[in-house]
Order: sequence, then C-alpha cells, then structure tokens
Amino acid sequence: MRSTTGWQADGSTGALRRVSIPRRDLRRDDVAVRVDHCGVCHSDLHALRAHRGGDAPALVPGHEFTGVVTETGPDVTRFRVGDPVAVGNIVDSCGECAMCAAGQENFCRDFPTLTYGGADRHDGSTTLGGYSREYVLRDRFAYPLPAGLDPAAAAPLMCAGITVWEPLRALGVGPGTRVAVSGLGGLGHLAVKFAAALGAEVAVVTRSADRADEAARLGAHDLVVSTDPDRMAAARDRFDVLIDTIPVPHDLGPYLGLVAVDGTLSHLGHLGTVTVEAMDLLVGRKKLSSSGSGGRPATAAMLDFCAAHGITADVEVLPSARVAEALERLERNDVRHRFVLDLSDLS
Amino acid sequence: MRSTTGWQADGSTGALRRVSIPRRDLRRDDVAVRVDHCGVCHSDLHALRAHRGGDAPALVPGHEFTGVVTETGPDVTRFRVGDPVAVGNIVDSCGECAMCAAGQENFCRDFPTLTYGGADRHDGSTTLGGYSREYVLRDRFAYPLPAGLDPAAAAPLMCAGITVWEPLRALGVGPGTRVAVSGLGGLGHLAVKFAAALGAEVAVVTRSADRADEAARLGAHDLVVSTDPDRMAAARDRFDVLIDTIPVPHDLGPYLGLVAVDGTLSHLGHLGTVTVEAMDLLVGRKKLSSSGSGGRPATAAMLDFCAAHGITADVEVLPSARVAEALERLERNDVRHRFVLDLSDLS
Repeated sequence: MRSTTGWQADGSTGALRRVSIPRRDLRRDDVAVRVDHCGVCHSDLHALRAHRGGDAPALVPGHEFTGVVTETGPDVTRFRVGDPVAVGNIVDSCGECAMCAAGQENFCRDFPTLTYGGADRHDGSTTLGGYSREYVLRDRFAYPLPAGLDPAAAAPLMCAGITVWEPLRALGVGPGTRVAVSGLGGLGHLAVKFAAALGAEVAVVTRSADRADEAARLGAHDLVVSTDPDRMAAARDRFDVLIDTIPVPHDLGPYLGLVAVDGTLSHLGHLGTVTVEAMDLLVGRKKLSSSGSGGRPATAAMLDFCAAHGITADVEVLPSARVAEALERLERNDVRHRFVLDLSDLS
Repeated sequence: MRSTTGWQADGSTGALRRVSIPRRDLRRDDVAVRVDHCGVCHSDLHALRAHRGGDAPALVPGHEFTGVVTETGPDVTRFRVGDPVAVGNIVDSCGECAMCAAGQENFCRDFPTLTYGGADRHDGSTTLGGYSREYVLRDRFAYPLPAGLDPAAAAPLMCAGITVWEPLRALGVGPGTRVAVSGLGGLGHLAVKFAAALGAEVAVVTRSADRADEAARLGAHDLVVSTDPDRMAAARDRFDVLIDTIPVPHDLGPYLGLVAVDGTLSHLGHLGTVTVEAMDLLVGRKKLSSSGSGGRPATAAMLDFCAAHGITADVEVLPSARVAEALERLERNDVRHRFVLDLSDLS
C-alpha cells in the first residue's frame, strides 16, 4: 500500500480536510497518475451533502482530472512515465457484458466502478477521488491528453464534457441541426461549444437576457429568454435537440415546448424522479431522454475533437486549499464556468 | 339544422340513451356520412366517466368510424354520394399553423377540433361523436375507405390504428428493427400487425404466458412475460422501439429496461402525469416519448398500407343497442381486440 495526500470529507461536518489517504500498489495493468488538476463537479456537492453526518465510507471527491503518468504496471503498453493523461468518472467496468463489448462501459450491466465512492472490483475497497495528489487506476480508463489542450482547462472535459458529448453525438447533432442548451454551467457551456463546433445552429435558453454576450462568446447563435413568454412562444417547436443541464428539478413543460416534432430533450442536469405531462410529449411526438458519462470510444473521440477544434472548458483555477470556497461558490452558481483545483499545493 | 339518432350520455347517471341529436346543415365543404360502424375506444370510457354528474355539454362518444357519403356540399370534389369513407378523432384544424402546414393536423397549434367533445371552429357548438347514425364534417377530414377493407374491422384503424402507426413510422420501424408491444388491446394488437407487416422483428410483452398463441396469430415472433424475471432479464436492452399501450398508469422502469441503447419507449396507453426515474433513461440513453392520433398524410398512408397488406382490426361487432355491454366489458379488458358498434339499428 502506498499513500498520497487528499481532501477527505469529515464524517460529521462534511468539511474537507487535508489528510493522508491510501493508494493501492500498482496491479499489472495499473498506472499511477500525479493529479495536477481536478474539476469541481455538481456531483461532488451532492456527494458531500449525502455524506454529512452519516457513517458512510471515506469520501474524497473529484472525478474529472488531468495529470502525468508516474509509474506503470508491467502489463501496461499504452502509457509511459511522463505521459499526460486525463481521467473521468469511471475507472473500471466488467469488460464482459454487452454494454462493455459495445464500448458503452458507462452502461456496464455490472455497474461501472466510479472514480470515487465506487467499489474496487478486486479488493472491494471504496474508491477515493481526484481531489488528491495521486490516483492509481486501470490503464484502460486513462486517456492520453492530446497535445495543445491546456491541462487545467481540459480536466472538466472528462465529466462535464463527455456527459454532453455522448448525447449530442447519439442524437446526430451536426450541420443543419438546431440545438438549444439550457443552463450555462460546466455542462451547458461545453454543450454550446461542442454543438457549435459540430456545425449545428445553437441557442442558449436562459432566464436572463444579460447572458447574451456570454452565450455568443461560447459560440451560440441565439438566445431564448425563458422568462419572456413572447420569446418562448417564438421559439416553440424549434429545436431538434435540447440539452437541459439545469442542475435542479424544474418544470419540463416549457422546455419541451421548444423541442421540434420528433425532437429530443436530453435531461442531464440532475438525477432522481422526473415528472412530465404526457401531453407535453404527445403533442409533437417529443422525446425525453437522459445520458451520463461516456464509453471509452466516445471519450477518446471527444478528446480528439477537442484537440482538433481547440476546445476546453472555461475555468477558474484555484489552489486545492481553496476547495471549500469553490464548492460554496458553485452552490450559488457563481462560476464561469467550472472550478478546477490545482493540486500542486498538496506536494 | 338536421337531426339524427345517437347514443348520448345522461348527465346524471352517465348511461347512454338513444335520443335525437342535431347535425348541422352542410357547409360548402362538408360531407354528410351515414355512420355504419364505430369503434369503442378507451377514450370513450374516460369521457363518460368524466361527464357523469357534471353539467358539461351533451356527450355522444365515438371517434373511429366508417360509413358512406350521403350528401356533399357544393365545394366538395373529393367525394361523391355513395363513397365509402373513414373518419377518425379529428374533424377540423386551423389549417394555417406550421403543424397543419406540415401535415400534422393532430398537433395543430390552435388545437384540432375533436370528433366529439370538441368546439366547432365556426359556430362553437360541441361536437357530437360517431355513436350516431349520421355525422357531418369538413371533407378534408374524411378519408376514402380503400376497397377490400371490411368496414366494421376498418373502423378502429381510425383511432387505435393511427395512434400506433404514426410513432412506428416516425421511429423508423422496418426490416432490422426490433419492436416490442405491451398491452394487446385495440392499440396493441394493431401495433403488432403493423410492425410485423413493416418487416420488424416483433415481440409482445404481456403479464401471462397464455397469450402466446394470440400474439403469434397477430404476427409476433416472440413473447416476453413481464411477470417472469428471468425472461425480462433475458430481453434486457433488446428493443429499438417499445410501443406501450397499457391503458393505466404503471411503473415504466421494467419496460424501459427492455429498450435498447438509444431506443424509445412510446407511451400511448393513457394521458396524465408520467413519472420516470432519470436513471432508467440515463443508463442506455433511452427515450420516453408519446404520440396521439395522426396527421392527414399519415392517416391516408396508413389506410393505403392496410389495403396493401390486408390489415384491419380484430373486432367483435355488436348492435349499437348493446353499447353499455361493450363499455362494461372493455372496462374489464374482456375484448379481443376492439368492440365495434353496428349503427344500422338506429335507422
């Protein structure tokens, strides 16, 4: 067993404390990664909230990070020490089910091993996330970080990015497609960049008109102000795909109203029970879908696409010692558009 | 004003009484139809239930019927007296909105005029349905009944049929597609026939294995018994399209489990609020959709397809005087697969 330094949730208060955490000795197909940058995801907030006061296993958040390979197991051929890599929210899967065979490890029937809060498939230990200086994982779930992508700004691609990339691709977004994106957080701002780079006509749906410049800067061609009934009515039935990244439960009716006949609302912002009026789907044969994370082929394709188009997240980088500030500001939506922790202060 | 005989709901008891009901004098683009056969739809049950004890306008159910043109307005060129016709649950629409322009009159933005319980677009009167000996409607919403289709068995095509036809076509069902159908009532049995004739591989999802022969006779290639966990597990992620016609609210989770990655569950059996677990959509990027009725082009195409493939509903024809019996048996699902009223007893 080896160890590293990480930010672990205090069981009673939920506050993150800098502590020494264990990392496993490398298995034959493992790589060790020095974590340089880790994005701060809404899931981290949820996990910390759920963890508070309970007697759950140790929690170290963080599931979108970039860094450098520092050691490789004897069977590893894809990486060498010094390679820049990116890791997302899946670090293992069964590798044998139909979903894994189809390259949709995110839908592994035996459930993928999550980067934190998951159960390691060999020793059953609880995985500890990327708010730490080192991570050890199976090499299959590390991805070469393409040259030219800033490592800090690339980190959020690995959760926020792939979460919107997979549905955009699966729904055939490209030239001639009309795409709307609601919510301009980590997921939403990357959805706008991706959809625009894929050649789609992109609109941002937002509560306030004062985000027009920001939307345009991200590549959007139009803004629909959701609090303005006239503009909502004018945009009725207009979008083949609506990527809904609003991170809290909300009435889907007005958003489904924007979706074109046979179009799809991809509901990505939060989990739980979703309620919809059948009539809102019926009129226009509209579809409600969801998606989460991505399979290995899609993740690799996304990174290639980002390299080709120079796409990374818009980030605010903070030393990891300021993680509490990042979480608190994320909670009140005060971020443009993703916090990334610089973990070099843990060395 | 002219009059005919119909079965009208008694305001207090909800029982249907044989009474004289008004029909309008023909407008320039109207046809009068002698109603020979009218299907008994689940919607009729719902409408009667909702009507009971209230002081709603007069209710004459019935929105899938066939008959013969008996009179035409001066501008009518599509029909002549004596033509066999079929009418569904829409008898008018605005004709000007984007949906009408696209041939999706069922999604008319000004709301289509329903065959019963709707508001006539000219005089505001409440439309009275096809449980009657004569109907008067705008010629655009009457369809030539193709030769070779039994008029009694063709009546249910106009609501049950088109309701499943449109989503099957919109979802691209054809050779190579795997389709499941849950519920074997009026909608479900026609969905099986259509999907099989379209060249798809079709399975019926049912609670009891004793419907295997019936499913096979309708054209299904397989049966999935929803109460058998092993058979449900074996059919996991298998169907590109699941046509869910179960006419009561039910847990969608097990049915979504049968849907393939990027596949669609088309929820057609009932209206109201639908709840779904986001995870049931997320894992497999599955889609929940709905549909209702059909536009004019799709309705005409469905009738052509039925004529080409010899498809009609499996019906039990009763004299209209036995309508109460039909409704009562439909309510307890004792029908194979659609009741049709023979309205000649109203002459």
